[in-house]
Amino acid sequence: MSGGMRSAVVAVGDELLLGDIVNGNAAWLGERLAAAGAPVVHSSMVGDDVERIATAVRRALEDADVVLVTGGLGPTSDDVTRDAVAAVAGVPLERWPDLEQGLRERFAAYRFEMPDTVLRQADVPKGAAPLDNPVGTAPGLRIDVDGRLVFALPGPPHELAAVATGGVLAEIATRSGTVGLTRTLHCAGRGESNVAEIVERTITVPPGVDLAYLAGGAVVRVRLTTVAPTVADADRVLAPLVDALVEALGDTVFGRDGDTLPGVVLRRLTAAGSTVAVAESLTGGLVGAALSELPGSSAAFRGGLEVYATDLKASLAGVPEQVLAEHGAVSPQTAQALAVGVRERLGATYGVGLTGVAGPDEQEGKPAGTVHAAVAGPDGVRVVTVRLPGDRQRVRLLAVTSALDLLRRALPPEHP
Amino acid sequence: MSGGMRSAVVAVGDELLLGDIVNGNAAWLGERLAAAGAPVVHSSMVGDDVERIATAVRRALEDADVVLVTGGLGPTSDDVTRDAVAAVAGVPLERWPDLEQGLRERFAAYRFEMPDTVLRQADVPKGAAPLDNPVGTAPGLRIDVDGRLVFALPGPPHELAAVATGGVLAEIATRSGTVGLTRTLHCAGRGESNVAEIVERTITVPPGVDLAYLAGGAVVRVRLTTVAPTVADADRVLAPLVDALVEALGDTVFGRDGDTLPGVVLRRLTAAGSTVAVAESLTGGLVGAALSELPGSSAAFRGGLEVYATDLKASLAGVPEQVLAEHGAVSPQTAQALAVGVRERLGATYGVGLTGVAGPDEQEGKPAGTVHAAVAGPDGVRVVTVRLPGDRQRVRLLAVTSALDLLRRALPPEHP
Repeated sequence: MSGGMRSAVVAVGDELLLGDIVNGNAAWLGERLAAAGAPVVHSSMVGDDVERIATAVRRALEDADVVLVTGGLGPTSDDVTRDAVAAVAGVPLERWPDLEQGLRERFAAYRFEMPDTVLRQADVPKGAAPLDNPVGTAPGLRIDVDGRLVFALPGPPHELAAVATGGVLAEIATRSGTVGLTRTLHCAGRGESNVAEIVERTITVPPGVDLAYLAGGAVVRVRLTTVAPTVADADRVLAPLVDALVEALGDTVFGRDGDTLPGVVLRRLTAAGSTVAVAESLTGGLVGAALSELPGSSAAFRGGLEVYATDLKASLAGVPEQVLAEHGAVSPQTAQALAVGVRERLGATYGVGLTGVAGPDEQEGKPAGTVHAAVAGPDGVRVVTVRLPGDRQRVRLLAVTSALDLLRRALPPEHP
Repeated sequence: MSGGMRSAVVAVGDELLLGDIVNGNAAWLGERLAAAGAPVVHSSMVGDDVERIATAVRRALEDADVVLVTGGLGPTSDDVTRDAVAAVAGVPLERWPDLEQGLRERFAAYRFEMPDTVLRQADVPKGAAPLDNPVGTAPGLRIDVDGRLVFALPGPPHELAAVATGGVLAEIATRSGTVGLTRTLHCAGRGESNVAEIVERTITVPPGVDLAYLAGGAVVRVRLTTVAPTVADADRVLAPLVDALVEALGDTVFGRDGDTLPGVVLRRLTAAGSTVAVAESLTGGLVGAALSELPGSSAAFRGGLEVYATDLKASLAGVPEQVLAEHGAVSPQTAQALAVGVRERLGATYGVGLTGVAGPDEQEGKPAGTVHAAVAGPDGVRVVTVRLPGDRQRVRLLAVTSALDLLRRALPPEHP
């Protein structure tokens, strides 16, 4: 929470207060403002009301050197952020002819009739500068209020990102004179308290460095953050800590920073010239969806079988009827036969088999959360059995992580 | 935004400001407070700091009759919400012996060693009442501050839900003397502006009723909200509007209120005693995942084929090599052959076939966003071709909706 500057975020929109949408913009900005050396100290949401927005911005200016307002810049009558910003600065709105011209041309090009309210987007508080919005009609605004900076940014996330990264975040970083650097290690196969125990006996966190654990979806992220004048300075502080943790945590660490478990698995498969196919039951298709979420996944992901009904485990994936009859559809033996069968039938280097009870009800006398995962590869088959916590949705997501982590551990490591 | 009472939410936690987690609690409470007749007028996020939390609660009390604070009630030293609430009320913290005893027994039962900081959870501001938390160690708090109510609730979403629904929301609803009622129609197959046009020529929105359009994932939700002394009063206002819209929008409406598209499809299939199987390419497994997300889906969802690699479209789903060679893997003909093939091979009443280009790169000279969906059933085959906007993730999600909506339209309607 330390840094060269302090920032605040004000998100505008009735739909945020009513819970129709979650305030993802605040989280997006929070991460980037910390990296720009201006961590967020206060964030608020207000409805589409001039007075309430103005009050929120004034309060934010008490706490922060820079205030970012998101939303309320659109063309309809309930978009009143520019009026509120003008009120806070104590200046009138002025219509900019070149912005008006741009809006008229844009509508003419699409052959749409232009409602007059659209022209409100050409209004700029006196003394403010419009910020180019390359992906929408509403420009952002930048204005100096008694030596502090207020930016008004559009609410649609892709427009916010376009305007914020088009100069706003860079100006804040330059002004703050510092950068916040974050290094993250992604861990799977150990619980949070177990990871924390290893971390805390391995490193002593020096002053000025924050250590945090973020757990979710059976992945534990260990995050180190520091603030310094330059990235190189920050890296000199964090790099030895990260190296020590990678050494101590061993193969619990599957990736760093922007890595994801499916991304790491695909990278390892592709590097080895190998392919994978999956046969999944309780997850319905989630493992295949994860393995195909990234561009280029067709280099390693061949496809899979959604063997939800028990008879399909036999007819599609070749699980012997005897295995199903003796051990049940939810059994280590069935997971193993699914992995072996899909590997052979889909012609892949590795086969993944996954079966279990998503819940809420038990199945074959086995309780919800019982999951068996198997990986078949050139060196044989591995099977794991886990008992996963949570509701149906959580069990399915954790099962995906279990299966992908088992696959990762069967693959040649990236850093030999 | 009208109502008998006004509420405010203060969410506590450094992780919210840093963007590590999105403030889903504020959205969850926003929806329920509106329904309790106490819509949220202001929502804020602050870090783990006594002064900042206290300031945020004081500001919230200026705006609202009831303030809900989430998070910062846990056992560690950075959990300081109870100190901040005590500071706002101007009272000291008192340790409640029976709460302390409960914590000691809980830890003894698990045979865990209990750090002393855990006992902070037995501290209650003088004059406040603890709120039972049936799913965690941290009780909530309820305190009267100059005639206004402050509730402190735990941050983990399932604990928040347990404590809020265990009396907090009911007390607020009773105090407000009003209820907010919301009726939602879920539409697919028309764009937002097209739906709005039909709505606006069909009904005149009376005073006291809010109309909103919420679009996302190729689904447009039309939402009507009103506030009244009782649910029956509110329903008398909304029911005729809803009936008129259902009539005018016709089969564009696939569901109401808590419905989802996969849920409606499964309900119709189950009611008809029919089953479905899917063969999906660009979505990797997302259609199967959607059709298996609800409990009881095994009654209608048999399974599917993830035919990501082109050769699997032939070998697994039986798409003729000639179709692939002549028209390509991304073609209406291939979608049709996938639907017919999977229906037959997996023994289902309906087969769904889905192929397309998720992007970012084009494929077979077809641009990203090109998607062909087909449904084969007892009455033949339907195929649709759409050009979907957005990035890879968005194209895949919209493709799932396109396929499920095509399937819905092929099924016998629910209200004949």
